[in-house]
Amino acid sequence: MSQIRVVGICGSLRKGSYNRALLEVARQVVPEGMTLEVVPIDDLPLYNGDVEAAGLPEAVQRFKQQVQAADAVLFATPEYNYSIPGVLKNAIDWGSRPTSDNSFRDKPMALMGASMGLLGTARSQYHLRQVAVFLDMHVLNKPEVFVGQAQNKFDAEGNLTDTATREHVQKQLVALAAWTRRLRGG
Amino acid sequence: MSQIRVVGICGSLRKGSYNRALLEVARQVVPEGMTLEVVPIDDLPLYNGDVEAAGLPEAVQRFKQQVQAADAVLFATPEYNYSIPGVLKNAIDWGSRPTSDNSFRDKPMALMGASMGLLGTARSQYHLRQVAVFLDMHVLNKPEVFVGQAQNKFDAEGNLTDTATREHVQKQLVALAAWTRRLRGG
Amino acid sequence: MSQIRVVGICGSLRKGSYNRALLEVARQVVPEGMTLEVVPIDDLPLYNGDVEAAGLPEAVQRFKQQVQAADAVLFATPEYNYSIPGVLKNAIDWGSRPTSDNSFRDKPMALMGASMGLLGTARSQYHLRQVAVFLDMHVLNKPEVFVGQAQNKFDAEGNLTDTATREHVQKQLVALAAWTRRLRGG
Amino acid sequence: MSQIRVVGICGSLRKGSYNRALLEVARQVVPEGMTLEVVPIDDLPLYNGDVEAAGLPEAVQRFKQQVQAADAVLFATPEYNYSIPGVLKNAIDWGSRPTSDNSFRDKPMALMGASMGLLGTARSQYHLRQVAVFLDMHVLNKPEVFVGQAQNKFDAEGNLTDTATREHVQKQLVALAAWTRRLRGG
Repeated sequence: MSQIRVVGICGSLRKGSYNRALLEVARQVVPEGMTLEVVPIDDLPLYNGDVEAAGLPEAVQRFKQQVQAADAVLFATPEYNYSIPGVLKNAIDWGSRPTSDNSFRDKPMALMGASMGLLGTARSQYHLRQVAVFLDMHVLNKPEVFVGQAQNKFDAEGNLTDTATREHVQKQLVALAAWTRRLRGG
Repeated sequence: MSQIRVVGICGSLRKGSYNRALLEVARQVVPEGMTLEVVPIDDLPLYNGDVEAAGLPEAVQRFKQQVQAADAVLFATPEYNYSIPGVLKNAIDWGSRPTSDNSFRDKPMALMGASMGLLGTARSQYHLRQVAVFLDMHVLNKPEVFVGQAQNKFDAEGNLTDTATREHVQKQLVALAAWTRRLRGG
Repeated sequence: MSQIRVVGICGSLRKGSYNRALLEVARQVVPEGMTLEVVPIDDLPLYNGDVEAAGLPEAVQRFKQQVQAADAVLFATPEYNYSIPGVLKNAIDWGSRPTSDNSFRDKPMALMGASMGLLGTARSQYHLRQVAVFLDMHVLNKPEVFVGQAQNKFDAEGNLTDTATREHVQKQLVALAAWTRRLRGG
Repeated sequence: MSQIRVVGICGSLRKGSYNRALLEVARQVVPEGMTLEVVPIDDLPLYNGDVEAAGLPEAVQRFKQQVQAADAVLFATPEYNYSIPGVLKNAIDWGSRPTSDNSFRDKPMALMGASMGLLGTARSQYHLRQVAVFLDMHVLNKPEVFVGQAQNKFDAEGNLTDTATREHVQKQLVALAAWTRRLRGG
């Protein structure tokens, strides 16, 4: 069975982020044949077409190579103001440039998110699904991972204490593996 | 008749941006009793909750004060990857923080956008409308300003050559003035 | 203080609908100076432009008059397939016709919804908010009413047993009253 | 090469509908190995959970069988009030019921639409894409078919006179065939 390399991208830059912790959970429960590596986005500059025209900054080149080398992409993202965090969207905007070298193209993708509210970043995730249409990514339909009331599911050190969430994350990764293999033809 | 001070925010950092040019058009056709000042967002750092916790950076404080001092907000934004540009969302994310001091709260807002495609940034604008729900802003319904095929409507120096677009922008500003006065009770 | 007549529209035709029950709760806790009347939509035919061209059916005329006579509209809606129920959208489609006689135009609007899942019809409500832009309605921003896990909050007879939900519904109606008065200028 | 049977669903009930005409164009330019049959939705009753509980109406059973027998689904839809027509959503709501027998599950899907405005039903299509997540359908990313200013592209008899649109529709069908074969593994 062929290997699946997944790149994980966290939509929050905060060290103690629940979404960063959620990616760590994902890393722990990854199914056999799959690896997950989280790549940083905090060193990317603000996207600016003039900067792009002068040559892609080094951090951008590094980020694009990491995404391109992956077989699938896993976003773990908070919801800021009912949508995608600007910092995450900024990373996506860079990764999609130039149009002729969109690093996300044709990759399977899965989405998860944790928030303190009840909706578990749903609004942010549906905006990301629309973004994926332009990127020409193939988003896993189900299971969706909306971790609401995260403050009750992680302890103070950022360890997930909620077993149901851990199992749900694992189910999503298993589904992502199957989806990735189906898209590549086995 | 009371004055209306509008702050304009451009979703692109590019110097030759059509959206920046569109804001300049808006500044030229602003109705009597309204002023429009464009505020920069290119000096804002990437939003990071840890940075916020350590104290709002100077550029963020400046940006928040400029928004707070305004009676209404006008966004002119491109569409990146079928959604809001990361750089614009990043500015909004900072401006909304902390929750107890959301600089956008209760302000009337209007939206315009220019793109080279046919849809004129519609997808980006509907995502911004959802963001406005959380920000508790009051978005003008109509007229909507979708400037498609911008390359045929601006000359090489970024001057708008399309009369219909100029008149449409003006109509939106007149409607924004009426909407702002209605919300403030006259 | 002027009276506010609200028309309530339920997005489900099911007799035992949680959303119908939610509208009944709203009717019970309506603030002084506001009345709420629920109008049926189950006798409207499927929208068909050819039928419209031949003359508005009687049920449509009745529905349009009821909406037009109201000062504000309150939707209580389930979520079907991550969006607005077809039956509710069908009622809206009729009510908006013809364009020159859109019965919803310029009316304040509020949204609530109940579902057995965790999200409490959020996805359906955000689609309705986009619909409201075209209808030129003015949607209340907050508080939003997402009643998730409705099966635990209503008893078998459809009576709301959850006090927090009752208070939340009441807060929304108070906010709708204030929003309606603000928009009409006092 | 295996055959692909596509079921076409028109979101308008109007006889002279541009979207019906667009489906007829699609039928004419369908690539080798693909067939397209348009199925009616105008005889479906308004969705009502109580009616469903009493047994699926005959028209609903017929509709569900037609969808289930297809390898892929092609929607051609107008945009009503910035979203999916109620009549189309009503058909989808029936087709998805009961949950254990969702007729759309796991099917590839493509979207097209024609309107007299500039956006060519884009807003309606993005709402349909969100619906597809719940239905567990796999929506073709590109090419998207937004036929704006339809009144200039069809003649009075509903014949498409715009060659570029015809070619664009054909490209989408070719892409849908490839997408369907990729998902079924060849």
